[in-house]
Amino acid sequence: MGKLLIVGTVAFDAIETPFGKTDKILGGAATFIGLAASQFDVDSAIISVVGDDFPQDYIDLLTDRKIDISALEIVKGGKTFFWKGLYHNDLNTRDTLATELNVLADFKPVVPKSYNDADVVMLGNLHPFVQLSVINQLKKRPKLIILDTMNFWMDNALDELMEVIKRVDVLTINDEEARQLTGEYSLVKAAQKIFTMGPKYVVIKKGEHGALLFHKDQIFFAPALPLEEVFDPTGAGDTFAGGFAGYLAASEDSSFENMKKAVIHGSNLASFSVEKFGTERMLKLNHKEIKERLHQFKRLTQFDIELQ
Amino acid sequence: MGKLLIVGTVAFDAIETPFGKTDKILGGAATFIGLAASQFDVDSAIISVVGDDFPQDYIDLLTDRKIDISALEIVKGGKTFFWKGLYHNDLNTRDTLATELNVLADFKPVVPKSYNDADVVMLGNLHPFVQLSVINQLKKRPKLIILDTMNFWMDNALDELMEVIKRVDVLTINDEEARQLTGEYSLVKAAQKIFTMGPKYVVIKKGEHGALLFHKDQIFFAPALPLEEVFDPTGAGDTFAGGFAGYLAASEDSSFENMKKAVIHGSNLASFSVEKFGTERMLKLNHKEIKERLHQFKRLTQFDIELQ
Repeated sequence: MGKLLIVGTVAFDAIETPFGKTDKILGGAATFIGLAASQFDVDSAIISVVGDDFPQDYIDLLTDRKIDISALEIVKGGKTFFWKGLYHNDLNTRDTLATELNVLADFKPVVPKSYNDADVVMLGNLHPFVQLSVINQLKKRPKLIILDTMNFWMDNALDELMEVIKRVDVLTINDEEARQLTGEYSLVKAAQKIFTMGPKYVVIKKGEHGALLFHKDQIFFAPALPLEEVFDPTGAGDTFAGGFAGYLAASEDSSFENMKKAVIHGSNLASFSVEKFGTERMLKLNHKEIKERLHQFKRLTQFDIELQ
Repeated sequence: MGKLLIVGTVAFDAIETPFGKTDKILGGAATFIGLAASQFDVDSAIISVVGDDFPQDYIDLLTDRKIDISALEIVKGGKTFFWKGLYHNDLNTRDTLATELNVLADFKPVVPKSYNDADVVMLGNLHPFVQLSVINQLKKRPKLIILDTMNFWMDNALDELMEVIKRVDVLTINDEEARQLTGEYSLVKAAQKIFTMGPKYVVIKKGEHGALLFHKDQIFFAPALPLEEVFDPTGAGDTFAGGFAGYLAASEDSSFENMKKAVIHGSNLASFSVEKFGTERMLKLNHKEIKERLHQFKRLTQFDIELQ
């Protein structure tokens, strides 16, 4: 069993989709990552910040899953980061209606002593400055540092982002962001260019079109599970990252062969996440369901052409 | 070895992509289907029509590959069907600059006697009326009738198209067209709705995002091979259909398991087709290259998660 250190937002989300809307519910990259990773045999801790408006119930949801929250700072009199989004009819595009940074604006992450020798560090989407600060506090180079980011930081903090990218092993990013970061339309070329920036592995997330894993001249592809209904895509990318990082931390093997399995586990968990609002589905997920859906992934992708 | 009967256009294409442009070159659905199918151990014939402006060299390209062209009508004084298209920078969208039906306008297909007991019939994209006429001329119900069509016929000949759909075993169609035909956004629901129209198998082509095969409650997915460069997408869908139909005709096995392999073979051949203008790459393709790329497909998609 490995140690997984997670950095990212713990937040309130308000979501509107064609199927309904929510008030402020539990959200945030670190939350989704932590919940997904908790499906594996791993010790994990979250570094994040909330205000004292953050309900004890939500904190309990994390500790119930044995997630170490000693580095979840609770700012007295502060307000928790809030995001409000409206998804369009195809669920592939959304408008951000509100982003209130609140306590996140002045966040100084502190790596807990018991995790400064983490095996895997998952840097969830957040200001690159915070991600860099976490890397700098580690006493030992982790076996694997995984970075998730988004176009917002390319637009607003590119120098700091490039500094983080230089120091990680794996970059997970969506297709449009990979194109923006590299200026290459072909995802194969984009991945090759990202290799020159630092990472040895690149995961390009294509939402409903699956995910590509690149390493040197090797490529692996995992589809998204075709679903009858996608209810709410919020957190799907973070859930993918959490399943990916959680599986790698638990298996303590970062070979390309094992990383392929990690991509499948990430895709598998993400396929549940989108079935309900926010974290709802992830909180009720059991091992039997997960296993049955892994079977579905096998049936969906495995074929038997004899080749010599 | 089975008999494959192909119906579709044999045409001149003029193509402009961000990488270059061509004058009138060999094109047409039946051409791409026939060239792809000729990679398998199959007897095939094309039913189509051209004008006497169609060069003997192009006809030789087909007969060199043992494609029976006794039902390729050559209209004296007639002009061959011509399509001119301009691809945009992302190669995913294109403008049709010219469509000259010419001899296609009055085409009355005649099934050659030696093929009215074909094992597999591949109805390439064409007026549903022509496709229907071919079905009606068959003396024996083929083991498999495969239909490829496009949104143009949904807009302009929906009743006739529905009549053809009712009578085929497999419908191949792209994602947007599946949504248009069924009014369902979810491709899983769209496929289920298409089952009620007649076909027992549905293949939804998603271009660079791969292809989905549906049968009852079973789903199989084949990605498109991630390529450094896509040069010209013209004919990729037809090449996919030709590989799919050719493999099924050669193997004489239309089980779901075998159809999965057919989808992989179709995707494999399509990955070559897009590397050069028109049919150029398909005409120079050898078995060693095909096999090597099938290995790539395996490496791209196969993983080893132990499940009980």
